[in-house]
Amino acid sequence: MREFDLINWIIARHKADPARVPVGPGDDCAVLNVGGQKLLVTTDQVLDGVHLHLAQAGPRACGRKAAARNLSDIAAMAGEPLAMTATLALPAGFRLEQAQEIYFGLCEMGEQFGCPLVGGDLAAWTQAQGPLQISVTMLGLCRQAGPILRGGAKAGDALCVTGQLGGAWRSGRDLSFVPRVREAQLLAQEYDLHAMIDITDGLAADLAHLARASGLAGRLDAAAIPIHDDALRGPDPLAWALHDGEDYELLFALPEDQAQRLLAQQPLPVKVARIGTMLAGEGLTIIRGEREEILQPRGWEHTT
Amino acid sequence: MREFDLINWIIARHKADPARVPVGPGDDCAVLNVGGQKLLVTTDQVLDGVHLHLAQAGPRACGRKAAARNLSDIAAMAGEPLAMTATLALPAGFRLEQAQEIYFGLCEMGEQFGCPLVGGDLAAWTQAQGPLQISVTMLGLCRQAGPILRGGAKAGDALCVTGQLGGAWRSGRDLSFVPRVREAQLLAQEYDLHAMIDITDGLAADLAHLARASGLAGRLDAAAIPIHDDALRGPDPLAWALHDGEDYELLFALPEDQAQRLLAQQPLPVKVARIGTMLAGEGLTIIRGEREEILQPRGWEHTT
Repeated sequence: MREFDLINWIIARHKADPARVPVGPGDDCAVLNVGGQKLLVTTDQVLDGVHLHLAQAGPRACGRKAAARNLSDIAAMAGEPLAMTATLALPAGFRLEQAQEIYFGLCEMGEQFGCPLVGGDLAAWTQAQGPLQISVTMLGLCRQAGPILRGGAKAGDALCVTGQLGGAWRSGRDLSFVPRVREAQLLAQEYDLHAMIDITDGLAADLAHLARASGLAGRLDAAAIPIHDDALRGPDPLAWALHDGEDYELLFALPEDQAQRLLAQQPLPVKVARIGTMLAGEGLTIIRGEREEILQPRGWEHTT
Repeated sequence: MREFDLINWIIARHKADPARVPVGPGDDCAVLNVGGQKLLVTTDQVLDGVHLHLAQAGPRACGRKAAARNLSDIAAMAGEPLAMTATLALPAGFRLEQAQEIYFGLCEMGEQFGCPLVGGDLAAWTQAQGPLQISVTMLGLCRQAGPILRGGAKAGDALCVTGQLGGAWRSGRDLSFVPRVREAQLLAQEYDLHAMIDITDGLAADLAHLARASGLAGRLDAAAIPIHDDALRGPDPLAWALHDGEDYELLFALPEDQAQRLLAQQPLPVKVARIGTMLAGEGLTIIRGEREEILQPRGWEHTT
């Protein structure tokens, strides 16, 4: 089974109800109308052995990452975190102090962004073999006119990215990243963002999501992609930057003139780079030297 | 580790923020202020081998139960379900059709109560031994003046319960119950409910939660407790009705005169029984014949 087969099947089955649910499954968050407010809802999980390794990372880092992944989804809509809930499925024999460490990890991350833990559930595997699993659901509010969706890019828009890409999970950076919540809010306030996504599956895969949702093609300029030191040490730094994922940086599209202003102003604590352009058509290409090549996403995907 | 040790530790650490979070961890749902509305949030999980057995129940019943447990928490606050999200951690080798069955189970339950699935996440265990785990988070709205909490009972209140208790998980009734969402709304509209909880851990354990939250004692009348046929077949039907749990019935406290009117009117499709009284003090007792005995909750609890 391929994960995206099921996700696309679920998205296709969603019954549109724009008055109550302006944005259903398929974006970084769903959007609900609640009392005249746009409420963001997202959920994400971490599994021991899949998204991280409890034995190496320790329980606090597991809790931290579970909260941070969700904060990054709120950031991708330029939302303001409101509150979170968590469920913990604990290995048999897990100690109270270990569970408390998960809680500390969740809360230290949430508290940085005014996002308290307001509820949860815990259970322990009775089978000896059940591994640690943490699910977090996060709520947020959208302060500006509307949330920034994946599907709003226009042909001719500049593609920009925060920070540097590649090598995140190889180096353990995926356990310590700070979600780009404040950066996203500032970008959405100061610039006319058309579309945004956070980079979790990899630059190529997430650009493919954004391009498909917008009904456009995306073209990257290989020389402009900011490659992280963690990837520069590898045998193929560009491939790692394109495909590793778990960067939790923001990828966004905005009009050319807005991008020029942003690049001149550099208003964020992290550098913004212009890495490509949205074009009419479909699929992805990448310019390497003189050549423009087809780019196939091969971002990390859960399969079974 | 005892589950309630960690839960109580988490509740004690919650920082009160009544303007944004009128009700934090420790009730059936948290309550958030969103745009002048009272937003309910609850989360609950099912683990294969703990809350059910995938091999016997099949994937659809697993999805159904995961949604139904959350609906029952919304019911316990007399809320109106709004939307849900789900995360699925799938065993290695799980087939697409099996995952789709989980989705059907989630949605058939949600759709009965106008509660669409608006987002989710799925991942597959890479280790051979990871069992199925489903987490659902459900949002609801509180239409009446306020949500019905656990802690609002007054000394002298009558204790009532919907339906019949005992033997639920022994008979598989825990896989087919219909959450008391509509019953709870009608009760909250027509009667002055002081406190309510849904019976998941067992009548005795959940009454203990309600009594403790209200700062009161609870007294049950053994002869008045409605025992389900599934428990009448057992060696000690009363013990099963008191302690089995997974009944997903409503237990609530209301003034004596309100209870008399409710019992005379019987306005629900399910019968309401008066089973006891809230009293000043603490702890639980039960009247059996001529004697009043101490009642120790021994509801089902996850331990590790």
